[in-house]
Amino acid sequence: MVLVSTRNPLNIGAAARAMSNFGFAHLRVVNPWEAAFREARSAVGAAPVLSAAQEFQTLAEAVADCALVVGATSVGRRTLEQPVRTLAAGARLIRRRLSSGRVALLFGSEKVGLSNRDLSHCDWLIRIPTRIEHRSMNLGQAVAVCLYEVARDYGKTPPAEKVQPATASDRERITSLLADVLRSSGFLKAWPPALADEKLRRLVRRLRLSSSDAEVWLGILRQVLWKLRSSNSGPS
Amino acid sequence: MVLVSTRNPLNIGAAARAMSNFGFAHLRVVNPWEAAFREARSAVGAAPVLSAAQEFQTLAEAVADCALVVGATSVGRRTLEQPVRTLAAGARLIRRRLSSGRVALLFGSEKVGLSNRDLSHCDWLIRIPTRIEHRSMNLGQAVAVCLYEVARDYGKTPPAEKVQPATASDRERITSLLADVLRSSGFLKAWPPALADEKLRRLVRRLRLSSSDAEVWLGILRQVLWKLRSSNSGPS
Repeated sequence: MVLVSTRNPLNIGAAARAMSNFGFAHLRVVNPWEAAFREARSAVGAAPVLSAAQEFQTLAEAVADCALVVGATSVGRRTLEQPVRTLAAGARLIRRRLSSGRVALLFGSEKVGLSNRDLSHCDWLIRIPTRIEHRSMNLGQAVAVCLYEVARDYGKTPPAEKVQPATASDRERITSLLADVLRSSGFLKAWPPALADEKLRRLVRRLRLSSSDAEVWLGILRQVLWKLRSSNSGPS
Repeated sequence: MVLVSTRNPLNIGAAARAMSNFGFAHLRVVNPWEAAFREARSAVGAAPVLSAAQEFQTLAEAVADCALVVGATSVGRRTLEQPVRTLAAGARLIRRRLSSGRVALLFGSEKVGLSNRDLSHCDWLIRIPTRIEHRSMNLGQAVAVCLYEVARDYGKTPPAEKVQPATASDRERITSLLADVLRSSGFLKAWPPALADEKLRRLVRRLRLSSSDAEVWLGILRQVLWKLRSSNSGPS
């Protein structure tokens, strides 16, 4: 479980408690409000989950070793680029993927949820089926509901997928190599740089690469980049 | 929803919020710690659920008009007289009964849960499937999980994703452009030509591209190919 930019220590504590209730051990926090994280950790009776929590500066680092990255969203007015699944359907997929690799489930800050930039790290999103008139849930409650659903029927999980999916760090390397290739070939001129990174990250993520295919694509991109650069050598 | 002897105003507020999220309107509180109830009700932005909450002196009065009374319990050491159902099974029964009459779902106090006396008002009990080593949930989270499950499939799920997959001909065009790019960049030297085509076709097929992403990748490949060829111009 990854909490991004959480501000309220009670919410960090509540998230950790729900994790312990439903049997999830690995809490990662990205860029928390420092005081909140310290306070939550030092709370009397802080759960083992909380004391073992890891802190990261960026979301990319926090999900680097994960094969699937899923964001929880209330889907407000924003238009979303990623597929949105209901919690029940998403949880089923998460259960299946958990047998072959790490899965990150992301929750954003209490005020604004996950930013568009955060969302660009996600393979897809889940939405808890709340009323349209009152979508926004309390963070600790949203975490509890999601983990309850993911833990559902854990005994009788379907067989694992046999393909080993690429990790987030593989995909991040592909994204950045692709960006280099596109810059070298003049493709990105039309796109503003910040937007380009997000767009490319989403584009690569949608490929749903396996770990072995990721290797092939990395090799391809390296070769193309090398060729582009060596022909561009000299002033350009 | 009936909260019995709740002590923490934050929990009353959280319960009300989850009710609003999942579409339940009638909150009843029995013998709350007075100050807690007053504080919860007067909180800024207190939900309509909270201001419409009714207060009762006894549980018997609170559930008097209900056709089914269900208690939520973590089932600790106590021997229980009533049947205990898992949340999923219990929620299914509750949904069925909701069409013919009122159903009360009871939650006890944060410290001790429902007393044996409270339990005696219940037709049966539900248990949220938490880990045996850490059964006790935060009250607001337990309420959220139960209501999520009762509301499950209530309006039936939203329509599936509408992503249009790329056609075989899109993928074929990508495959052949990719082959050209790889030839121009010297990547394919190691592979026998016939094998190369097959391998690339499979590689592209595994990407499971959407129709719109296929357009983007075609654009990328064309640009890269153009750049490779224009730098390779002259003898090569």
